[in-house]
Parts: sequence; structure tokens; C-alpha cells
Amino acid sequence: MEKILVAQSGGPTSAINATLAGVINYAKRNNFEIIGGLYGISGILNRNFIDLSKKIKNDCDLETLKITPSSALGSCRYKLNNSDLEKILQIFKEENIKYFIYIGGNDSMDTVDKLSEYFLENNEDIYCIGAPKTIDNDLVLTDHTPGFGSAAKFVADSIYKVARDIDVYDYKTITIVEIMGRESGFLTASAMIPKFITNMGADFIILSEDIFDYNKLKKLIDKTFEKKPNILIAVSEGIKYEDGTYVSEDKTKVDNFGHTKIEQVGTKLKEMLLKDYNLPIRSIELSILQRASIQSKVDIEESFSIGEFAAKSVVNCNTSKMVSIERLSDDPYEVKLNLVDVSKVANKVKKVEKKFIENDYNLNKKFLNYLLPLIQGEPEIQYKNGLPVYFDLK
Amino acid sequence: MEKILVAQSGGPTSAINATLAGVINYAKRNNFEIIGGLYGISGILNRNFIDLSKKIKNDCDLETLKITPSSALGSCRYKLNNSDLEKILQIFKEENIKYFIYIGGNDSMDTVDKLSEYFLENNEDIYCIGAPKTIDNDLVLTDHTPGFGSAAKFVADSIYKVARDIDVYDYKTITIVEIMGRESGFLTASAMIPKFITNMGADFIILSEDIFDYNKLKKLIDKTFEKKPNILIAVSEGIKYEDGTYVSEDKTKVDNFGHTKIEQVGTKLKEMLLKDYNLPIRSIELSILQRASIQSKVDIEESFSIGEFAAKSVVNCNTSKMVSIERLSDDPYEVKLNLVDVSKVANKVKKVEKKFIENDYNLNKKFLNYLLPLIQGEPEIQYKNGLPVYFDLK
Repeated sequence: MEKILVAQSGGPTSAINATLAGVINYAKRNNFEIIGGLYGISGILNRNFIDLSKKIKNDCDLETLKITPSSALGSCRYKLNNSDLEKILQIFKEENIKYFIYIGGNDSMDTVDKLSEYFLENNEDIYCIGAPKTIDNDLVLTDHTPGFGSAAKFVADSIYKVARDIDVYDYKTITIVEIMGRESGFLTASAMIPKFITNMGADFIILSEDIFDYNKLKKLIDKTFEKKPNILIAVSEGIKYEDGTYVSEDKTKVDNFGHTKIEQVGTKLKEMLLKDYNLPIRSIELSILQRASIQSKVDIEESFSIGEFAAKSVVNCNTSKMVSIERLSDDPYEVKLNLVDVSKVANKVKKVEKKFIENDYNLNKKFLNYLLPLIQGEPEIQYKNGLPVYFDLK
Repeated sequence: MEKILVAQSGGPTSAINATLAGVINYAKRNNFEIIGGLYGISGILNRNFIDLSKKIKNDCDLETLKITPSSALGSCRYKLNNSDLEKILQIFKEENIKYFIYIGGNDSMDTVDKLSEYFLENNEDIYCIGAPKTIDNDLVLTDHTPGFGSAAKFVADSIYKVARDIDVYDYKTITIVEIMGRESGFLTASAMIPKFITNMGADFIILSEDIFDYNKLKKLIDKTFEKKPNILIAVSEGIKYEDGTYVSEDKTKVDNFGHTKIEQVGTKLKEMLLKDYNLPIRSIELSILQRASIQSKVDIEESFSIGEFAAKSVVNCNTSKMVSIERLSDDPYEVKLNLVDVSKVANKVKKVEKKFIENDYNLNKKFLNYLLPLIQGEPEIQYKNGLPVYFDLK
């Protein structure tokens, strides 16, 4: 029996285990041995493996894993160096691993790229495929990324609920909702949905791609206050001034990768607004729940198919590729899975296109057409003792 | 046809419209005219009424209203003065309102108390009943409050998901989740559920009722780090030092009611911990979603019954009362509805009893037995375009 290794990397999503379930499903049905690497590539370097054929006993286990949020195999944030490549080759050979599927974002695609090139250069009979995931939707060469639809549904749902909540009072208030996305505003842009669908939602949506102009925002707020008392603003954590500096930049803090720390842009914006408006102003950060909570059925099923497709592709000796989604039609929603060169995806960032962005801190109908199919449907969740039932692999 | 007036007050909950639906259901089935006062008592003072018999056309409307979060009639935060009482009496007489049901928390019960006493003193044939609601569960003379079960389920669910999210890395991290509750820690205490049920959840739960002792917490953290890398702490927004000052107190800010402003205790705790731990430390505030999101079916059905019971009680000429829940049994969970004197509830605060609290910032099994029945079941929600379908009254 040939052996497939699968691992997960980067930030968790609500759909990352659906892709894992797809890989396992393909492997089991086609008589491959399937093992999991715990804690991503750094766990693989420590030979931290589990036998997934044994862990997933039946279809019921598989279905539960499919709707389990957060990386069931654990994750890491680790950049490969050259000595790692050699070490991994040795481990793969000793463990008899012929196929490797890495589920992750830009950095993980870089790992897939480096590994597959190294195996190619050394004429090794080992194949590597990347399966995309990220709530940020910032990978190039794919219509969208698995995990984004569920996160977008959570954002849309939360914005709708917050809009309903703040609507209960008839006096003026301003509410800011801070949404993940340092360079790409796709997730924040999802805040557009409720207003288009229900007429209650975010009044202004400021993306990482926008130029943040406080005076422009203030004028828009004042105009809106003439029509309604409650104003709701959605902002990307990475909004920037015209000169490119982050609104929430703290130059004294730099992280391990040399990125300037950006924190609590919502609170920063609240402080600015409090100087001009003597009103109740609240800032809400959606935080971790964005990537661990509500799921879209379309996203879960698509992520599962991507896992199956990745497995099928790698055992057919494709390597140095990433699975990508090509959209054939918005309505009815139809997609096709393809393989693209992983080197063309690694370390690149996709942004919200200008054609989707309006001048008054809003998104247009074109973006709604792109977005709406991705948040459709609710997977069936089993509950026990009032809590959802999830699957534990570690 | 005799006329019932119903209104809502205070902070919204996920179940407050279930109580409203119960009132409407009783009124319609028993041939009472039913009108709603928009924006609580302050709207009533402006004769801001709607005809609920017309707005709710059928059982389908009623079912949708039942699961709609946030006060569908709008809300207010307004303390009655003596001239208001006279004005309200005049409005009630002119509008032919004989029965009044006010759905709200402590402050709203004060309004019910004042109004019903005023009508009694003046020998008016007008009757007032309070229907409790608050996510804080801080009303006395009732086993628990409608709205609490849903909020507790949201907290338990969120803590479970956050615990799963932070578990993906094998290096040390600390995560703080800040939960609503200035004086009562019931909602924060709900963070205990996932750990008891699934073994993944909050490691420490610091309530408004606890004395916050940083050194004690630090010792507990250090001990826990010997066993596992990720630590999750749930804190009430109102945690206090031994001398009674709030940990997050900002003495420079005082709100309209004279309360010192407390803000972002999670961030405050994070800053303290960062001085001792060179680790990724994150603070998450659950914020508004606590009272506007996930619902417990037990809570929704109970809230509906309370609305029906309030309507039945008031048309039987009970006045100056609040509906209260008496628990008959934990397992099987069984309750009975009663009337209690609203004057004994108004302006009082119930706290988490000492018998439920352990010395290591945790809650015990006794509290789980109290809590668990309240978060059971998930009401059926209809979706359209990927978003839940709710009912609009205003």
C-alpha cells in the first residue's frame, strides 16, 4: 500500500478539517495508507505522525470531522530552511511516504513549493500538492479559498445581529466592528451582505485596500445621522492612511517576522470619533470566532471536494501544484477544480479588486454576486449536552 | 374588547421576543386587543404605539418573532419620575389600556412597581405585570431569568470554539475571554461548561463575585503550564480587587448614572500578564453577540410560556407582580411559573452563590447541574440568502 501524508498549517478555519476529511475519504476508498502529521511541517520534522486510517473508523467519524472547526491535526507557523529539506526527505524515505498534501495558506504553499522542487531536483519519486485554506481569501490564481465562505457567513451573520441589536434604541450611537484582514479586505467586505439582503447592516465598510480618510468618514456619518440614529461601521484590522501607514500601527512593537504590530484599530477609531461625537460609541472585535464558528455548507462541501481532488491529483503524480477553484457561473453557482503551479501562489497576496469598491466606503452589487453563493447553506451539526459534537484527532 | 399593552426595556436578549410572542399569542387566542409600545416606557410617554394584532398575522409570523433576537419593539433606559406617572395614567385612560406587561430587568421592574402602585393608590382599574429578561441572570426571587440560557449557551459554545482554536499550536499561549457582567458573574460562570463536558474549555474563570488576586492567578497559570501549553481564562467585565475597586476602573470616566466606567478588563489583564510572560497573549471580548446570537430552545420555549403566563395573570387582575421561575427538578428539568411581588425584585441584584464557587477560580458540579438544563436544545431557524430570517415589528 502506498502512503499519503497530510498535514495542516497556518491559522485555523471552520472548513480546514473538511479538506482533511476529503483527503482521508479518497485515500481510504482507493486503498492508500493515510497518515497525518501533527503540528504541520514542524511536527513532521519531529516524526509526529498518527495513523488516520485507524482514527477515522467509519463514515460517521468522517462526517463529524468534516464539520469540526480548527485544525484537527494541529498547526504551526514555520519557514523551512535548507537543512530541513534534506531532513524531511530522509524522514519521508524512512517512513515510506510517497505523497504529501499540505493544507494551508501562502506560507504553506511556499513550503509545498520548496519541498516539491527539492524532490524534483533530486529525482525522488515523492509528490507534493497544496490544498488552499484561509479565511482571508488572499490567495491568487483561485476564485476564492476554502474557509473564506464560512468566515464570510459568520461576519455577515454577526453584522446582521449587531445591526439589529443597536437598532433597539432611538437615540444616536456609533458602533464599530473590527474584522480580520491585514492586507486583504475580503472578510471585512462580507459585512456588506446584510444591508443588501435585509436593509439592516453596516453603513460603511472600510477595507485594507481603501485609503482611510477620517474627514471623509465624518462627512458620511453626519449625512447618515440625518436619516437614522444608529451607525454601524465595519473596518479591516489593516486599514491604512494615504501614506501607507496603518491606522492602528504601534511602531514600538515589531513581531518575529519583522511586521509592525497592528492592534485594536476599532478602539483607535472609537477614540478618534469620541473627540467629535459626544455619543455612546462602541468597538467590537470579532476576533477568533471568525475562523472557528459558523459554517457555510457550500464552503464545507467544496473544501471536502478539494481534499479529494488533492489526493487524487497527488497519487496521479502531480507535484508542485495547488488545487484552485475556477468559477463557471454565479447563478446557478458552479465551480470546477484545477491545478495551478504552487510557485505562482506562494508568498503572493490577492486584494479586493477596485471594480468591487465604491467611493463611499461600500461595496457594489458585483461583489455581492461574487460573495453570496459562498455563504449558502448550513451544515447539519449534532449536539450533545447543549454543545456541538466535534471530532478529536490529537 | 379589552386592551393589553406590551413593551420591552433594557438591554436586548436573544429570547426577549419569545416572551413578546407569548403575550401576543395569549391575547389573540383569548380575544384581547394587543398593542405594542415602541422604545419602552419613553415611547409610551410619546404614544408611540403599534397594533400587534395586525402586525402578527398568523402562526408563522409568531414563530419567526419567537426566534428573532433583540427587542423587536425597541427599548429604552429611562427612570420614571412622578409627573410621568400622571401622564401615563392619562394616556392609558385615553387609549383605553387596561393591562400592561413590561418585559425587562431590574430597572424595568422598578417601573412596573411604581406604575402599579400609582394605579392602586388612585383606585384605577389598570393592572401591571413584569416579565423578566436579562442575560445577566441577576434578578432575585426567580431561579433564573429568560435570556440567560441563550447567552450562557453562546458563552459555552464560544469558549469551546476558542479552546479548540488555541489548541492547534504546541507552544505556550494565554487567551483571555472577557464576558458581560458588572456585578453578577453568572454569564462568565457559564464558561465552565465545555471543560466539564468535553475536557476542552476555560482553565480559570474569574467572576465579579471573586476577589481578583493577580499573584494567585499567576501561580495557577504556572502550575497549568506544567501540564499543557495553552491557557484559557474567562473573566467578568466587573472583576474587583479585595478593596472593591474594579480591575478595569477608569476613575476619570463616569457615566450618566454616576457609575464609574469599566472597560476592557481583558486588555488590562493582558497587559499585566505581558509583564510576566513573554508569550503570545490575546484578549477577546464577546461583546454584543452574547445577547444577540445563539439561542437555547429551553430558554426560548420558557420565555414564550412566561409571556403567556404574564398575559393570563394580568387579565386576571393581578398587579404589582413579576413572573418568576421556580425550579422543581434539575434532571429531568422541570419548572413552575409563579408571581412574586415586583417591589421585592426591583433594584436588587442576585449574585453567584458561594456554594458554587471553588477556590481556584473555577465553578463546581453543583453549578453545572444548575446551568446545564438551561442551554439545552437549538430552535429551528429558517435561512434565506445565507442569513437567518427574522421578524420586523417597527
